[in-house]
Amino acid sequence: MRLQDCRITIVGLGLMGGSLAMALRERIRPHRGVWGVSRQPRTMHQALIRNVVDFATLDLAEGVREADLVILATPVRTIIEMIGQVGPQLAPGAVLLDLGSTKADIVEAMARLPAHVQPLGGHPMCGKEVAGLDAAEATLYDGAVFVLTPLARTKGEALDLARQLATAVGARPLVMEAERHDRLVATISHLPYALAVALVGVAEEAGQEDELVWELAASGFRDTSRLAASELTMMLDILLTNRRSVAETLRRARGRLEALAALLEAGDEAALREVLGAAQARRQTLSRRGVGQ
Amino acid sequence: MRLQDCRITIVGLGLMGGSLAMALRERIRPHRGVWGVSRQPRTMHQALIRNVVDFATLDLAEGVREADLVILATPVRTIIEMIGQVGPQLAPGAVLLDLGSTKADIVEAMARLPAHVQPLGGHPMCGKEVAGLDAAEATLYDGAVFVLTPLARTKGEALDLARQLATAVGARPLVMEAERHDRLVATISHLPYALAVALVGVAEEAGQEDELVWELAASGFRDTSRLAASELTMMLDILLTNRRSVAETLRRARGRLEALAALLEAGDEAALREVLGAAQARRQTLSRRGVGQ
Repeated sequence: MRLQDCRITIVGLGLMGGSLAMALRERIRPHRGVWGVSRQPRTMHQALIRNVVDFATLDLAEGVREADLVILATPVRTIIEMIGQVGPQLAPGAVLLDLGSTKADIVEAMARLPAHVQPLGGHPMCGKEVAGLDAAEATLYDGAVFVLTPLARTKGEALDLARQLATAVGARPLVMEAERHDRLVATISHLPYALAVALVGVAEEAGQEDELVWELAASGFRDTSRLAASELTMMLDILLTNRRSVAETLRRARGRLEALAALLEAGDEAALREVLGAAQARRQTLSRRGVGQ
Repeated sequence: MRLQDCRITIVGLGLMGGSLAMALRERIRPHRGVWGVSRQPRTMHQALIRNVVDFATLDLAEGVREADLVILATPVRTIIEMIGQVGPQLAPGAVLLDLGSTKADIVEAMARLPAHVQPLGGHPMCGKEVAGLDAAEATLYDGAVFVLTPLARTKGEALDLARQLATAVGARPLVMEAERHDRLVATISHLPYALAVALVGVAEEAGQEDELVWELAASGFRDTSRLAASELTMMLDILLTNRRSVAETLRRARGRLEALAALLEAGDEAALREVLGAAQARRQTLSRRGVGQ
């Protein structure tokens, strides 16, 4: 199945879904159109006015019924709810992909879908701390890794269509197991968020003691705390569907901060230089490789 | 004393000193020139070739002897060493300012200077994780807060000259006590660095278990870990001259991560929403106010 020949429906026209629709319409213009489903009348109208989609509806069943490829682009727990609702509505052979930020719980829900549906999980490693259709842009996926987590039941053709989709919007498909994905993103994605939240919390506390602290905030604070502004429902869903791995990575981070504090209090300059130097070398290597660019 | 009429000497032509020289020469062109002192012949030559300074020397005594305003722009512990060396060389009434990132130890060393010198501490709240003259730019100070920490002995005229300097390079002078400065930057500047180091450390550990973790690094990881690439000597000096306040802020951050992990493990969604929502609201307020821009 060629992506261009598919009728594609995107459920959820926020940052991720809206950007996906824009990239698909600008870059491959599927003959049978890109449909959008939103629960918000305002978003639906905006999506039509801005030409983000060819057709839009508030009715989930109507939106997915004749689609060849349905992409669920909402927060994780809403995706899990919708999998059950969407399944019986789908045409035989339809591919159901999602863009949720954790994968194990989603893939588990997908395993219970009727046999005529071809499901698989997806997670494009891109985003912004600003949510919603207003922040969407066709270039969002450019250069991003797009993780795909097929199920045992997923046919090669369905996986191939998902690969076509990732490539069409400028991303690089990377296939792996859902559990492995969740373990990795706990460190590389959810921990940065948790550290940003902790940083803002400590600064808030310091600001209650001396409000001048905010005057001294520079680009270092700005960048390190940026993720704390992330969309709340999205982040709650992520953390609550990846609890064990996130708790483990938080434990490791605490251990590292404790070790840093101990070296500092002991004035152990040589050991401190080693720890900070190792982090510096690794981070500089990543910059040269253009990580996250 | 007008800044334009001063002979200005900048000791240390790295990112901060080099950028300061460039901004001064581009924006106010002091009649008697901007001098630069470097320990590195290569840096001295680069500074001359790139017109960063009017004159440059490797000889500290020669560089500062006839200056009206000397600015020490090296890592903190080098500043502390140099204060003792520079003091006896300075002309009567010369103003000695520094750009070090911690202030209490520096101001303490300044208090021991000969009576004919007018010392005060300074800390412009700007920078980059890339060090050295190659990264210097005349716009670095634009919009930054420039903390000034006068001593009891600092005359109004010396403080006024430092204010002129801050304003001339596009920064906003903010006068406060050295101890207060150090307490505040522990939270707003040194903690972000420590969190970035911890994040890179945890990612390194995860990468040893599964190297695919680096493939999944996106802009969130990139921004949150950026500061870990900061110049090592500068950061070691900062942490080691602000040990008590940094240790306290690390303790607070650990407490917040522990609380997050506990809520997560308990699945306490309401409490989690409250903590994450408070951080989100605060961070969004800061974005609207343009913090660190």
